[in-house]
Amino acid sequence: MLRVYGDLQSGNCYKVKLLLAYLGLPHEWVHVDILKGESRTPEFLARNPNGKIPTLEIGPGDYLWESNAILYYLADGTDFRPSTRVLRARVLQWQSFEQYSHEPYIAVARYIEKYLGLPEARRAEYEAKRAGGYRALGVMEQHLAARDFFVGAHATIADVSLYAYTHVAHEGGFSLSDYPAVRRWCARLAALPGYVTMSGA
Amino acid sequence: MLRVYGDLQSGNCYKVKLLLAYLGLPHEWVHVDILKGESRTPEFLARNPNGKIPTLEIGPGDYLWESNAILYYLADGTDFRPSTRVLRARVLQWQSFEQYSHEPYIAVARYIEKYLGLPEARRAEYEAKRAGGYRALGVMEQHLAARDFFVGAHATIADVSLYAYTHVAHEGGFSLSDYPAVRRWCARLAALPGYVTMSGA
Repeated sequence: MLRVYGDLQSGNCYKVKLLLAYLGLPHEWVHVDILKGESRTPEFLARNPNGKIPTLEIGPGDYLWESNAILYYLADGTDFRPSTRVLRARVLQWQSFEQYSHEPYIAVARYIEKYLGLPEARRAEYEAKRAGGYRALGVMEQHLAARDFFVGAHATIADVSLYAYTHVAHEGGFSLSDYPAVRRWCARLAALPGYVTMSGA
Repeated sequence: MLRVYGDLQSGNCYKVKLLLAYLGLPHEWVHVDILKGESRTPEFLARNPNGKIPTLEIGPGDYLWESNAILYYLADGTDFRPSTRVLRARVLQWQSFEQYSHEPYIAVARYIEKYLGLPEARRAEYEAKRAGGYRALGVMEQHLAARDFFVGAHATIADVSLYAYTHVAHEGGFSLSDYPAVRRWCARLAALPGYVTMSGA
């Protein structure tokens, strides 16, 4: 049985939950509260020395971490990973874009607002995330204008990665009103069989 | 002929140069000066809408971007990508670690010092990179204490990704003196056939 250590309110963890749901894979979900320091205990660091969630137990005492690596592992042999070298590289390209040019703005702004309650001490940092987040959304909008999914003709783990924080971008103060192609793409992913929301419904 | 758009002084671009050298692949290198805005021209944005280097031309008018995606593409079918599902996922795990928990500290500190000349206006940001950078080096040191390479028994693109900014960490003010396993691993990579330095020698 796959065991996931994570927090469903974290988009990085929800990526894993969503793919498991799309694939219909049974699993155990162990809640980890990062605000209580549960990802920095000696016990947890033995699972993931980088002290982050999600972390996946793939065998007794054998752990895999980093959301993109976990998605890659779970999607192997399914339609959520394309079968050609170029398309597989493009999936990685968009997942890397998400981790480096999207998540550090949209997810961090959401963390400051939703988890921390937008404290005054972090308001300047919160505001500074605005430009980079909208820039990432602009790159997505342009790409999706003539496409249904990020890579190829159906949903892949690139879509799963990008969907997680995009569909809750408003929780970090971002509006999708000027991004109609992104909104249509979000609806497309929510309509796929097996879809679950962040609250698990 | 593969054409790479990049700047050899950028570790993200050097990753691509180093793998091409290890693999002995002929290629054309087109220098892009990001400080002169050359990655944000309309012409360049048509290649990579995210305006970043490295960008690889894999066919006429067909471009791939994000260093990890490019390494994945180039290493396909070679020893620099392992052949099992678990090991491949672990390669991605370490490459994701590099992009999210290592590069934003060590590479950005180096950028502020080496490219920008450590201006007073960015000194606080530079100092704030210290803790995260040493944290990443600590995770690497622990992992390498009993291993020669990051994944499996020989060098993979995980090593290439992590080597790029680690071996020039001193240019961002980081000392490797307390990280002997990391230093030995650096020497191991520099001794592999085909190795090139950042200056291309």
